[in-house]
Amino acid sequence: MKKTIITISRQFGSGGRTIGRKVAEKLGIPFYDKELVEQVALESGFAPKFVEENSEHSPGKSLLSYAFAPQGVPGVMKGLSTADFLWNIQCGVILQLADQGPCVIVGRNADYILKDREDVLHVYIHADMDYRAERIVRLYGDSEKSPETRLKEKDKRRAVNYQHYTGRTWGASENYDLCINTASISEDKAAELIIALMNE
Amino acid sequence: MKKTIITISRQFGSGGRTIGRKVAEKLGIPFYDKELVEQVALESGFAPKFVEENSEHSPGKSLLSYAFAPQGVPGVMKGLSTADFLWNIQCGVILQLADQGPCVIVGRNADYILKDREDVLHVYIHADMDYRAERIVRLYGDSEKSPETRLKEKDKRRAVNYQHYTGRTWGASENYDLCINTASISEDKAAELIIALMNE
Repeated sequence: MKKTIITISRQFGSGGRTIGRKVAEKLGIPFYDKELVEQVALESGFAPKFVEENSEHSPGKSLLSYAFAPQGVPGVMKGLSTADFLWNIQCGVILQLADQGPCVIVGRNADYILKDREDVLHVYIHADMDYRAERIVRLYGDSEKSPETRLKEKDKRRAVNYQHYTGRTWGASENYDLCINTASISEDKAAELIIALMNE
Repeated sequence: MKKTIITISRQFGSGGRTIGRKVAEKLGIPFYDKELVEQVALESGFAPKFVEENSEHSPGKSLLSYAFAPQGVPGVMKGLSTADFLWNIQCGVILQLADQGPCVIVGRNADYILKDREDVLHVYIHADMDYRAERIVRLYGDSEKSPETRLKEKDKRRAVNYQHYTGRTWGASENYDLCINTASISEDKAAELIIALMNE
């Protein structure tokens, strides 16, 4: 089946978001990164019913049919932690974005959320510590913590979050169609490989 | 640095060997699969000194300078298990093959053995159980055991062997430059992606 949607999971500092943006631009399709998905989820305003139904991760529910419902309804979180509450909403948002047509989605465990759709190409971008450390200092500057410490903390947090919500191991190649190491394959080349697969 | 050598690690039944052969043919470079490396190791005839030195996995030793030495010298295995003995010899063979120039090497943990060479592209080929089960029955026929049982046994053996000799986790994307899932990316396309990276 032809792939029209791309999910990009990535290690912090590996350049996955940059690659995702390049791919989306070249293909002329929407690009959603983690922050955008979170913003959509938070700004849309969901009815309790939507949240309740999505607590069970039931796919195929229409996000838009519940959007712009009143906020702040008592009991809307149904005892969920804020993280679980947001996770459920984001599942709905990502399923809905995929229903709308071709796009690139970065982060938010979209590989897992869209695992049952055959029209999705799942990509994982990673790189070794040295490469990422140099890159994050170059892009984001220094901080109190060493870049290695920042990376290890981020890696650990992502691995724990991924395991918690998906039951899978973060970075295991079996979760993806394509895994690319940007320490040895340039961002431009990585984008080219992904685009070559979409044009099959 | 330009890559001129390719290692292909693969899950049993994923088509990794076929892809490796296609790549070698297209690039016009030698192709060494696991069986060939084993045969070279066993047929060459090694001096005890070579084996002894290679027990410590010291890289850069010349295989040929010790080849064709007398076989059957007492104490040649120095208390090593046959597997460890063969592993040491194979390390030497693979390092030597890489020294000889561009090639494709399938299996034998060559990704680990050549991890310190910057001119090597490390590829991992995998696919989900259903895809591989159908493929091995089609190619190798039925056997007493179900294809799923055969695959699980092979997967487990490879994972244990890899962990034992490399200390790494089998199938972890971080060990490779490129990981490809042949259940969603065809063997021809996989070969094309690899060749595109060699032509950079």
